[in-house]
Formats: sequence, C-alpha cells, structure tokens
Amino acid sequence: MKKYSDMGKDELNELKAALIKEYEEIKSSGLKLDMSRGKPNTNQLDLSRGLLDAVDSKASIVSENGIECGNYAPVDGIPEAKRLMARLLMVDEDEVFVGGNSSLNLMHDVIAFCLLFPLPGGEKPWIKQEGAAFLCPVPGYDRHFAVTEHLGIKMVSVPMTSEGPDLNVVEDLIKNPIVKGMWCVPKYSNPQGVTYSDAVIKRLAAMKPAVGDFRFFFDNAYAVHDLYDDKKDELIPILPEFKKRGNENNAFIFSSTSKITFPGGGIAAVGAAKANLDFIKKNMSMQTIGYDKINQLRHARYFKDMDGIAAHMKKQAAAMRPKFEMVLNTLQSELAEHGIATWEKPLGGYFISLDAMPGSAKRVVALCRDAGLVMTPAGATYPYGNDPEDKTIRIAPSFPDVNELQKAAKLLCVCIKLAAVEKMLEK
Amino acid sequence: MKKYSDMGKDELNELKAALIKEYEEIKSSGLKLDMSRGKPNTNQLDLSRGLLDAVDSKASIVSENGIECGNYAPVDGIPEAKRLMARLLMVDEDEVFVGGNSSLNLMHDVIAFCLLFPLPGGEKPWIKQEGAAFLCPVPGYDRHFAVTEHLGIKMVSVPMTSEGPDLNVVEDLIKNPIVKGMWCVPKYSNPQGVTYSDAVIKRLAAMKPAVGDFRFFFDNAYAVHDLYDDKKDELIPILPEFKKRGNENNAFIFSSTSKITFPGGGIAAVGAAKANLDFIKKNMSMQTIGYDKINQLRHARYFKDMDGIAAHMKKQAAAMRPKFEMVLNTLQSELAEHGIATWEKPLGGYFISLDAMPGSAKRVVALCRDAGLVMTPAGATYPYGNDPEDKTIRIAPSFPDVNELQKAAKLLCVCIKLAAVEKMLEK
Repeated sequence: MKKYSDMGKDELNELKAALIKEYEEIKSSGLKLDMSRGKPNTNQLDLSRGLLDAVDSKASIVSENGIECGNYAPVDGIPEAKRLMARLLMVDEDEVFVGGNSSLNLMHDVIAFCLLFPLPGGEKPWIKQEGAAFLCPVPGYDRHFAVTEHLGIKMVSVPMTSEGPDLNVVEDLIKNPIVKGMWCVPKYSNPQGVTYSDAVIKRLAAMKPAVGDFRFFFDNAYAVHDLYDDKKDELIPILPEFKKRGNENNAFIFSSTSKITFPGGGIAAVGAAKANLDFIKKNMSMQTIGYDKINQLRHARYFKDMDGIAAHMKKQAAAMRPKFEMVLNTLQSELAEHGIATWEKPLGGYFISLDAMPGSAKRVVALCRDAGLVMTPAGATYPYGNDPEDKTIRIAPSFPDVNELQKAAKLLCVCIKLAAVEKMLEK
Repeated sequence: MKKYSDMGKDELNELKAALIKEYEEIKSSGLKLDMSRGKPNTNQLDLSRGLLDAVDSKASIVSENGIECGNYAPVDGIPEAKRLMARLLMVDEDEVFVGGNSSLNLMHDVIAFCLLFPLPGGEKPWIKQEGAAFLCPVPGYDRHFAVTEHLGIKMVSVPMTSEGPDLNVVEDLIKNPIVKGMWCVPKYSNPQGVTYSDAVIKRLAAMKPAVGDFRFFFDNAYAVHDLYDDKKDELIPILPEFKKRGNENNAFIFSSTSKITFPGGGIAAVGAAKANLDFIKKNMSMQTIGYDKINQLRHARYFKDMDGIAAHMKKQAAAMRPKFEMVLNTLQSELAEHGIATWEKPLGGYFISLDAMPGSAKRVVALCRDAGLVMTPAGATYPYGNDPEDKTIRIAPSFPDVNELQKAAKLLCVCIKLAAVEKMLEK
C-alpha cells in the first residue's frame, strides 16, 4: 500500500481499473443498506422494552407530588421526570421543562417563540428586527440547519476544532447584532463526535454577544452515549458556567431520551435559567395544556435516577461499540496508508465523520447509492447543504446489523478510493 | 316561588337578606370545589387503564405496515392510528395527520404555520399581510381565544344560535380579506353544547371567503361524547361537504382522545384535504421527525375501531350523565321560575352554559369564589375575556364528585339569585 499522491498517472489508471472491478463486483451482489440516519437498530429498541411495563393498568398514575398524570396540566411536567431530566441536562430541578417525545420539536418551538415574542433581554421579537442569523459549527447536524433555514434564519458557518467551535471566529461574529443564536452539540457532536473542552464551555459562558436576545442552543443529545467505560469524554455542566458569569440567560440546553429509550416514544426536555424558563412556560402554556405525563412517569419509574440510565446505557454501548469498531477498523485498514481521507475516532455518540479527498464527497455518496448503500447526502452537514470543499461524509453505523455494516464499510472505502483516483486523474 | 321581576323593592330586600343568610351558611361550611375546567374526574381516567397494557414489553411494537413504532419517522403517524382517527374526524384515511397528545397544540402549530408560511391558495404568510382576524362564535372556548390572541390575531365575535353560528353575520364578515379563519366547535360546542345542524355545515361548506388563505378551524373535541343512547346529536361529516362543493381547502378538522382516554396521554389528529395536509406535513417534518408512535399503537390496539370507542364512551357517559342531570335539575328547581337565568340542556359534551342576569356574571363568579367554589372566570368564553353583557357562566360538572357537585350547584344557584337581587336593587 502506498500514498496515492506518490503514484504516477499510469499507476493511478491501473488502480482505477482494479477499483472499478472491485466496485462492480460489490454492486452486482445486490446490496440494500442504509447508513444515512442516526437511527438505533431494532436490537437497541428492544433494550427498552421494560419501559412499556413501567406504568401498567394496575400502577398508580399519580406523580410523587399528587399530580394525576392522566389528566390535564401542569404544562412543564411532573417532578420525578424533571429531576431525571435535570440530571441529564446538568441543571437544577427548577430549571427544567419536560416536553413531548422530541427535543427537535422543543428546539423548533423555542426558536418559533423567539421569532414571535420578545425574549428576556430583548425588546422586539426576532421577526420584527432586521433579520436573524445563527452560527452553525460545521460539520453539524442537518436537522438543526433545516429548522433554522425553514424558519427564515440565516446561517453562518463556524469551523470546528478538536475541542469545539473555533471561538475566535465566534467572538468576532457575535459582535454583529443580527446574530441571534448558535447551534452547539456539546458532547460527541454530530457528526464528528467532538466534546467541547472545559475551556471552550467557559469561554462560551463568558461571551458578551452584542444583543440581549442572543441565545446558545446547546443540543446535548448524546449526554450519556459513551462507547467505553474506561475512556470517555467528560462535559462540564454548562448552565452553571453561564450562571457563574452572570450570563445564565444566554443558554438553552436541550436533551431527550430518543437515543436512550425510544426515538418514537421518549421524553424531551429543555433546561434554562429562570427568565428563559418563564419565557418558555408562558408561551408553551398557550400552545398546550400539557405534554404526555404518563410517558414522563414511565421514564421516571423505569430509570429512577442517573444510575438507572447509566446501567441502561452500558447495554446501548455494547450494541454500538462493535459497529463503531468495525467501521473504524475498516477505514484504518483500507484507507489509512493512502493519504486520501481523514476521520475522527469518537468515544461516543452516533456518528463517524470522514473527510474524503476535497471535491469527491458527492461522487462517493453517488457511487455508494448506485451500489445499494444509502449514505447521508454529501453536504448535508453544512448549512444550505453546501460543503464548500465537498469532502465531508457522515457515517451512521447504528442502524445496519454488524454483518451488513461490514459490507457497507468495505463498499464505502472502495468508493472513497475510486472517487479519489478519478479526482487525481482529472488534474 | 315567583319571578323576581314581579317583586317590589321591599320584597327584594327581604329576599336579599334571606339569600345572604343562606350564602353565609354555605360559606362557613368551608367548601373547596372546582367547576372551572373541563377536566375528567379520576374515575373517568380509570376507565382507560386497560390502555396502559395495550402495548407491553412482550408485544410487537411494529405497525401493521411494518413501521417500527419505537423508532424515528414517519412524521404523520402509523396506519392503524390514522384509520381510527380518520373515523373520529369523519375524513378518509389518507386525509389525516396523527400528532402528539394535544389537539390544542396541533391547532396552535397549524396557525403558527399559517402565520409563517403561505397556505395553499395564499400568496404570502399571514404575518406578512395587513393583519389577520378570526371569527369567534360566542360564547366559545377560552383556550381557542387565548391561542388566537397570543399569536397576534384579531378576534371578531359571532353570535351563536341554537343550530350553530349566525351565518348571515359570518357571510358578511368573510368578505373582508383580513378575515383569515374561524373557530368552530361543531358538536356539543364548548360551552353551550350546541351541535351544528346539517344546514349550517352545508352553508359553511359552500361559503366563498374573500381570500384563498382563509380556513375554518373545526375543533371536533366532543365527537363521541353523547350522554344518552337514545337521544343524541348527529353531526354530518364535515370535510365531505366541503369537498362536494370544491371548497375542501377551506377546512381543517381537529380532534383528540383527550376526553376519551387520557388528557395527559392521549393522541391528537388533524384531518384535511390533500393540499392542506401536504402543507401540514411539510412544515411538521421540519419541526419533528415524528410524534410518539407507541402511544398511537396503544390507542389503535386498545380500541381497534369505532365500535371499540363507542363501547368505551358508554362508560364515560355513565360517569358524566348523573353530573349533568344533577346540575340541570338543580338549576331547574332553584332558578326556573324566577326568570333570572336561562341555560342550555346539552345532550353531550363537557359543559353547561348559563346566562345569568345581564351585568351579574362577574359578581356571581366572585361570590362563588369567596365561598370556596372556583368557576371559569366570567367573560372567559368571549374574545379578550370580555362578555359585553356580563352574563355568561360556564359550568364544568365533570371534575367534582357527585356529592360535591350537589353542593357546588346549590351554591351557584344561591349566588346567581343573590347577584340578580343586588342588580335589581341597584336600579
């Protein structure tokens, strides 16, 4: 094996012919695989089946403080669910709002509130001002970008580093009063698996945006999604850092049990300091009389506390670990020595992010698709679907079985190599 | 007993003294009752306990067409839940979107979509036009009015008749392009219990609003909430009437199982013709990857079909009927002959609406409150909380036990009488 950059044109042409042969062989085997979305596998869903018995017909459906969970109200959830989600969000119990089954929905709704109603610290709703823009660390989560774009908010890319977003860029951009928010996935970021360092969180917490209605939107979706017991990233509690610096109104923190129990049947929550929480409660109480409290009760009784979640997440890790290792090992053995791709080696989360040869990511994804493997569209991890270097590929190893995944990873590597050779021969 | 209007001043003063004595006696007994909200009683919640076993840890959580209900997507729900909710909404199975636990939330979100994005038949979002107004049949549902006001939409009252809103008024008002919507509770309306007649539905369905982005918001919350087997109101299927006339894009129809199973754990849905449904699905798919499909599965498996719901609703009716009868009998025996109040005698729904002597409703509610009985605030059933005649009182008999309800109804009647006498003595 050698670096492609050390090869001459003839050698590259030979390699290309061999790769096409390999590609066609795989293609003719009739694969039908999907590594496009961060969906748990069926086996992972089965880990949470006990949840379905946690509140049965014989159980009390009254919360610990006497709320009838089957009935209307209150809007912000029951105490035992608040306590559980507060731990997950690393906020105080009185700093949490428990919602429905989707944190994306909560984020969407909070942004819609910000558009329509003045935030604490702001005078006018965002929509009544001269446009609004969000900072988007890239690569990032396509559904964050979709919500922002859909709601008419401009997006400005901020490069990621190995310990979080490039804060020099952020500090410069938040001087602009049009900048109203920033997306942050602080632990095992989607797609790179980067966890924000303590220094990054502290510097974010100390920032003074130009406007009082700026908010960081922390989506801590992978708070407990470590792959290993003995090596894991630690995220410093976020809101306390903001509070220490008197900037507690600058941050919303979201999470859910979507990737702990059921994406289609979990509970979601947002953590915020008092003024922000009051803003959410006030607007939410117009939108609904309350979310599904029986499902909140189910989760609180099933897990009891963070130890319960931790024990459960070990089972999730056992399901995910071989898949991550399979993909990473395949990338290592197939690509490492050729100098045509780099990738992160995350210790948790749901994704592996790979940078193929610049200008080749779209071609890689198209080659995969034609051979029966659906990948996240190239560019999806950038605002407006536009990866300026056309290099980032998001790998979502959770959904396929391990055997399928092996085939998928192998095919992906062949496509990365083939697209790289094609690119080099263009020059 | 005689009409108060036949009494002279001295007689009224005597009566007042006697009523004050009666009121003070009740007050000193230390009541603590609530007839303010349409909340089911605990016994009614218990009727749905079987639902909690409908999907247990041993059950399949795969829908009839192979959707993993525990996993992400699709956004619009699973087929068996769509089928069930389509029957409730009286629309086709492909005309339904199944959401979370709250139809109020769905209504709020659809209105927010209308504000932010152009509707089929409209060119600009409502918020980009010169204001938006909704027609509000009065008395009506306070939470509808709260959503409309909160979202910055003007409200215009339309009087109710015994068979629905006054359509001459409606036809006149919808000529104004600022009028973008109308609230309608078509069956057992909140609070009067009026069911729209076939003629009313047909005339609404034939209407030609001035603008293409006008919508009727039908909230069919009490679709199956009959009190009696042998006498019940029948609502004609709404959307088919609109379709027959080529006006299918003019109507959204909402419902939920909040008052069938659990207000804090049911499922909600919206029915609409294709273009409207696509509008909802498109915007919802930005907001969430999907609602709680396990709870959808629970409901679909528990009820199976409308026969299942009908059998269940007989039990609900058995719980509600004695309460309605208790209140109506008390009103009849205490008030009928005095000529100081009128009220509806609904055959279903959750409320009884009473018109006290004009100018006395606020006083009645205050008297009740001071004696330990919380009623819906006077004026709440009108836009901006403003009942121009200060006469409508909404009675919600579901939540108290029958014994408590008897005391509450008696107290209410004393307060109505006392406030009427006070009012008459003012003149």
